[in-house]
Amino acid sequence: MKTLFDDIPTDLPEELHEILADKKHVRIERIVSTGHASPDGFWCDQEECEWVVVLKGEAKFLFEGYDEPVHMKPGGFVNIPAHRRHRVEWTTPDEPTVWLAVFYKD
Amino acid sequence: MKTLFDDIPTDLPEELHEILADKKHVRIERIVSTGHASPDGFWCDQEECEWVVVLKGEAKFLFEGYDEPVHMKPGGFVNIPAHRRHRVEWTTPDEPTVWLAVFYKD
Repeated sequence: MKTLFDDIPTDLPEELHEILADKKHVRIERIVSTGHASPDGFWCDQEECEWVVVLKGEAKFLFEGYDEPVHMKPGGFVNIPAHRRHRVEWTTPDEPTVWLAVFYKD
Repeated sequence: MKTLFDDIPTDLPEELHEILADKKHVRIERIVSTGHASPDGFWCDQEECEWVVVLKGEAKFLFEGYDEPVHMKPGGFVNIPAHRRHRVEWTTPDEPTVWLAVFYKD
């Protein structure tokens, strides 16, 4: 049985998004970052809501309006309402960061 | 930041279900098993679809009609369509098994 921790690339030109389930009201993705972050000054503004957890590695996640990012470690999760502007400030360059993301509509 | 791996009970009379997100079309739960399994001869038949992953521990999961359960280890996941009868044959008694379950409607 393939797991979320198999076939983790260690060096990626861009963040990797893999769709695990694509249903009428929900899409589940594995995301792998290898040191990726949102471009400077860029805020992500999504049509969909996203519930996302870090399963491996580490990340710093920032909602617009906050001064300090949240340091996410394995098991740390956040819910992002649609159009709630946010960015990933940092992911650890020392190992891949594996996220599990559940995208849904309100 | 609280994580999915914090506050894991080690001995539970019944499997623990904690709702992490409860939205219009999706519900996300952390489930903790400490050696729990489905009762003998019982098949789980759910109104909702469920995408579920083992994050810690181990489980043996069986769909009706198959002879052998799937041995799920951390990162192993399965999608269970609504009304697809299934059961959990075993979870390891040596450590808690932490599941992340996404329930959704078709």
